[in-house]
Amino acid sequence: MAVYTEVSDEAVTEFLAEYDIGRLVAFRGIAEGVENSNYALRTTNGDYILTLYERRVAPEDLPWFLGLMEHLAGRGIPCPRPVPGRDGSALRRLAERHAAITTFLPGVWPRRIQLAHCAPLGEALARLHLAGEGYRPERVNGLGPHSWSRLLEASGPESDTLRPDLTSEMKKALDRILAAWPAELPRGHIHADLFPDNVFFLEGRISGLIDFYFAATDLFAYDIAVCLNSWCFESDISCNVTKARALLRAYDAVRPLSPPERAALPVLCQGAAMRFLLTRLYDWLNTPAGALVTRKNPIEYLRRLYFHLEARDEHAYGL
Amino acid sequence: MAVYTEVSDEAVTEFLAEYDIGRLVAFRGIAEGVENSNYALRTTNGDYILTLYERRVAPEDLPWFLGLMEHLAGRGIPCPRPVPGRDGSALRRLAERHAAITTFLPGVWPRRIQLAHCAPLGEALARLHLAGEGYRPERVNGLGPHSWSRLLEASGPESDTLRPDLTSEMKKALDRILAAWPAELPRGHIHADLFPDNVFFLEGRISGLIDFYFAATDLFAYDIAVCLNSWCFESDISCNVTKARALLRAYDAVRPLSPPERAALPVLCQGAAMRFLLTRLYDWLNTPAGALVTRKNPIEYLRRLYFHLEARDEHAYGL
Repeated sequence: MAVYTEVSDEAVTEFLAEYDIGRLVAFRGIAEGVENSNYALRTTNGDYILTLYERRVAPEDLPWFLGLMEHLAGRGIPCPRPVPGRDGSALRRLAERHAAITTFLPGVWPRRIQLAHCAPLGEALARLHLAGEGYRPERVNGLGPHSWSRLLEASGPESDTLRPDLTSEMKKALDRILAAWPAELPRGHIHADLFPDNVFFLEGRISGLIDFYFAATDLFAYDIAVCLNSWCFESDISCNVTKARALLRAYDAVRPLSPPERAALPVLCQGAAMRFLLTRLYDWLNTPAGALVTRKNPIEYLRRLYFHLEARDEHAYGL
Repeated sequence: MAVYTEVSDEAVTEFLAEYDIGRLVAFRGIAEGVENSNYALRTTNGDYILTLYERRVAPEDLPWFLGLMEHLAGRGIPCPRPVPGRDGSALRRLAERHAAITTFLPGVWPRRIQLAHCAPLGEALARLHLAGEGYRPERVNGLGPHSWSRLLEASGPESDTLRPDLTSEMKKALDRILAAWPAELPRGHIHADLFPDNVFFLEGRISGLIDFYFAATDLFAYDIAVCLNSWCFESDISCNVTKARALLRAYDAVRPLSPPERAALPVLCQGAAMRFLLTRLYDWLNTPAGALVTRKNPIEYLRRLYFHLEARDEHAYGL
């Protein structure tokens, strides 16, 4: 839950005057998302989302993110579409923050993942990957493999307070992952954070893919690995292979996976588990006790990592 | 900001099946309010608010609150109207909480109070008081004067960590307030917590009065005193008499204040400042450091209390 920046009613009214989307009707903070401040905004024209970008998002990346969303929305992906002001620019300033208004998407994110969610997710992810083609600018994945050693060091020896020998265990796993990391798989623009709370469903179908602020240009199959980690494990951190199979088959039906992509699934899943373990660990150790954000337990991702380290090949994921 | 209880999409879908208000379209936590969990709910019929009642609200009071809102809404007060399920009951259960759906109200609460807000507020408060007539059941004000000594004791000697001698200062003021408390003023149903974040404005007019979960049967003029405290002080805690006068005159034009009510304004304002000082002090000392609620500094209300202790008569408030 997150509203980090309080915006006054007067400031929003003034801000809306820069747009051609009607007058202010309602304006409420949304208790979701952990990176930015989000407000549900209603005008006499309809519903929108107002986002104020907080410290974690690099301002220089914002045009890339908004450009990608515009590109994807124009190709039928149900993602938020940036709304330009009268001067044509969607990226603006409000309350001393970079800010943007995007379209409202209906739907509800699934709190408990069911098998029926996984095929639509796989299909939507593949469509997202295909739709990204033609968006020329690229963005390096700031949380890709090259960043992981540095992230592990940033958490430092305090990590071992969470679990004895955690640092050395992670270091060993990381060495193995980086040594096996595939370089030559198909690449393009990926979401890189397509967790359940970023996917809205409406009557069984996907109605929204949101929160593109970790998107980057990287291996398509790594994006699948992120989803396998975040959608296909049960609450006891056991892998549900039926869900994984449904996700992978639906993906494959839209964008066929090459044999090298299939073979790389274990190491890509290890890497994805490592990436979320690393950032959660850092946040766990560095979130002030009084913060308005619920810290997520990193150990869940250590347990996923162990599963993936045991996986011999793609059959571990039901392929 | 507050969503204390997470509700699954499946639970909401099942819950909606108990109503005749269409199918689920969207469902987002609202980062406002500190007592209950609130969700913006959209169905194929329109927009609603779903509230889950948390520990601070006594379950036995809920029918009274919902009944009052129904009564007031039926008399033209722009307050949330409880929506009954198919069986006619608005008070239901969801996620192991008492829960209710109410109508959505447009508008935005004012972050910075302007003079122009104060007359509409005074008028709306008077209309609220008049509209409450005819709602038969009464509710004792659980945070009224009889509760204040107990509340001060509950905070205990720790209070003095906030400010030296705070407990003895408050004790002295409290004795004076209770000795002067008026018993015979006009009574009825009051909101008792009509702070700016509970009042929505739309294009200069009041479009919503929300959060009736402190409402009670008590002195009408005490409700005015709560508003004078929460709407008519600047950020340096100086009283803005122009705002107070606007509020009082607009109230008086709808429900004329009797001479004893006017004369009692200083002690009622002292009491209202004491009530919020006491609960904020208790919360300040008892909110766990990791809680998702921003603690409000009690000292702001101590400074208001000092102002009111100096007030000789109603002229202090511009009358």
